[in-house]
Amino acid sequence: MVQRNKNIARLKAGYLFPEITRRKNALLAKEPGARIISLGVGNTTEPITPHITEGLVAAARGLGTKEGYSGYGEEQGLTALRERIAERYYNGRVGPEEIFISDGAKCDIGRLQILFGPGARIAVQDPSYPVYVDGAVITGMTGGYSEEHGGFEGITYLACTPENGFFPDLEPARNADLLYFCSPNNPTGAVSTFAELKRLIDFAKAHRAVILFDAAYAMYIQEAGLPRTIYEIEGSRDVVIEMNSFSKPAGFTGVRLGWTAVPKDLLFEDGTPMIRDWHRLSTTLFNGASNIVQQGGLAAFDDEGLQEMERTVAFYMENAAIIKAGLDDLGFETFGGTNAPYIWTRTKGKSSWDAFEEVLYKARVVTTPGLGFGPSGEGFIRFGAFGHRGDIEEAVARLRKVFG
Amino acid sequence: MVQRNKNIARLKAGYLFPEITRRKNALLAKEPGARIISLGVGNTTEPITPHITEGLVAAARGLGTKEGYSGYGEEQGLTALRERIAERYYNGRVGPEEIFISDGAKCDIGRLQILFGPGARIAVQDPSYPVYVDGAVITGMTGGYSEEHGGFEGITYLACTPENGFFPDLEPARNADLLYFCSPNNPTGAVSTFAELKRLIDFAKAHRAVILFDAAYAMYIQEAGLPRTIYEIEGSRDVVIEMNSFSKPAGFTGVRLGWTAVPKDLLFEDGTPMIRDWHRLSTTLFNGASNIVQQGGLAAFDDEGLQEMERTVAFYMENAAIIKAGLDDLGFETFGGTNAPYIWTRTKGKSSWDAFEEVLYKARVVTTPGLGFGPSGEGFIRFGAFGHRGDIEEAVARLRKVFG
Repeated sequence: MVQRNKNIARLKAGYLFPEITRRKNALLAKEPGARIISLGVGNTTEPITPHITEGLVAAARGLGTKEGYSGYGEEQGLTALRERIAERYYNGRVGPEEIFISDGAKCDIGRLQILFGPGARIAVQDPSYPVYVDGAVITGMTGGYSEEHGGFEGITYLACTPENGFFPDLEPARNADLLYFCSPNNPTGAVSTFAELKRLIDFAKAHRAVILFDAAYAMYIQEAGLPRTIYEIEGSRDVVIEMNSFSKPAGFTGVRLGWTAVPKDLLFEDGTPMIRDWHRLSTTLFNGASNIVQQGGLAAFDDEGLQEMERTVAFYMENAAIIKAGLDDLGFETFGGTNAPYIWTRTKGKSSWDAFEEVLYKARVVTTPGLGFGPSGEGFIRFGAFGHRGDIEEAVARLRKVFG
Repeated sequence: MVQRNKNIARLKAGYLFPEITRRKNALLAKEPGARIISLGVGNTTEPITPHITEGLVAAARGLGTKEGYSGYGEEQGLTALRERIAERYYNGRVGPEEIFISDGAKCDIGRLQILFGPGARIAVQDPSYPVYVDGAVITGMTGGYSEEHGGFEGITYLACTPENGFFPDLEPARNADLLYFCSPNNPTGAVSTFAELKRLIDFAKAHRAVILFDAAYAMYIQEAGLPRTIYEIEGSRDVVIEMNSFSKPAGFTGVRLGWTAVPKDLLFEDGTPMIRDWHRLSTTLFNGASNIVQQGGLAAFDDEGLQEMERTVAFYMENAAIIKAGLDDLGFETFGGTNAPYIWTRTKGKSSWDAFEEVLYKARVVTTPGLGFGPSGEGFIRFGAFGHRGDIEEAVARLRKVFG
């Protein structure tokens, strides 16, 4: 009989977010009708803004006409969209021919792991988005899970804590081939400065690694003087692949659109440009984001669309401010929430799953337990700022009742 | 420096379809303005039909409203869509909980290879859709390419030729774990009978293999008495994963929607249900098809939508009949084209790339060279039946001039 793939068998029981859903449903089974507010999964809640919606609608309607119909799209995605991203997002630091439109950063993370293959050694920020680790396990880059270390053998976990300002000591990663780095960070909400990203790039160059930079929350940066793409740092083009997403700024979590930039300057040891293998891989195992959705992305990147995305971001960041202020008032130590839609909150000594359960059962608010993001997430829970305003205010009011 | 992934390095130079585009563009560079008709890539050309378009438009418009907005979708895809496919396509032979909605069969083929991992040994029909082989190479299931055999070491190629009625001798695959099988077949247009699929299933059971059944063209079957899903054959549920697609019947090549059925009865050697690992894998490295597109799929599977898909299929099959009649008149030996939108055509002794170039340069018609689908495709070219009626008629008229 066919053997189970040992890489997949290695994965710990559940992907984090389904486990959270399971526990939420367990509460609902006990108390049907309980009005639970979800600040757990970072799921957008507000309608797509008018101009971007119109882009989607027009594309869908056009498919029913001879003039507007299109079959298989361009291999790397709509040229007009890639040009607009190159110009308006990257200010020409990355060219349209280096941009690959995708159905979202999560899917591209998986494909990037296939690009580098099972021989690559990875390092991740700890805590981090679970897909980096789970994807590496599935691709065969790791050994087994070690209960003792709370992580997988063969992965280097770089602790990001309040004590180091959420910028890790990089030394343990000196043998890594791939450095996953996310800023603004999910889950801690920390943003790296120019100086920090410069250090990261210098380290990667010194140790001949590639940085896989997850910029899915870049449009959430509010403060001036912070890098919005890692390509703003000089010398980054031969060492960084950047992933980005329309999910959070445009409310496209269910619509599915993102992109990955692979500069031509990136080379494998044998001199092969990484972009060449990435092109081959992504055109072989992927067939492009939906044509309708790409037109929505095009609308999101014109003047009106960019303004709309700013307003959407501003709305969620007001949510973040409300949650952060509420938690601060209650004496919780919080991090993030000013340049990212996540508030990383110390649990006052409780384990993260215990704190998760307490907030769930007492306040009927779903959060995300920090341990789900890696061993250094223990002792924290993450509040997400996505939600209708009334729900956010209600959640904070409940927290006041429980913890006030 | 980071090493190139040796699996990807093993791939032959180009994916077939980009190579065809390259050669087409070479002609255009020589003769700008040449009016080329493409019957190469199986790319749909007709507008999406009204009811299905309306489903897409309504979904897009709804995203701009509080009531119609949705974020991340259900993990396996919209329940309503899975229920409708289970009921209307499978007549209950597969349950909604066994259906996974995806962004297309091509992407699912890649993910299925990751599911089984680099240790799996595969067998393919020869000729076959290039992604089976290329995906297996990328996943590390194969050795290098052998010029002598015209294929990759570690892959079993099962010759499908006019001489065996395009149903291969299965014996060489007795050690394979995965049997890729496509019916109606791309590229040969052959359809397997109930008896043939029964033989295939019996063989897989006897040798403890899993069949990966590509049914992307199933809705193109015109004759009665042929299986439209392999699950019509008794005893198939514990041995077959079936992939399907909206691309060709609904014109969704650029819209991106498909599904994969993984029955609960499928088990790995250690007893783990395959559906469990598939669920874990597809929720970890994939985030669902676009919500807009899934609503389009829902419209495609109600009464009106099903009728519209039948009309779309009928249109392309009329194209196929026109092409086939034209080629037959010219004394070409043709296969397929009656239950599949492809006409597999013997080249009268020419190599398939020579025949491709001849038809391209003399008739300005793009076909697909058979060799691109595997060694047994040598001596054939594939004509696709997708195109506006005028272009199809014009293509046949040009062929008459050149070969008549």
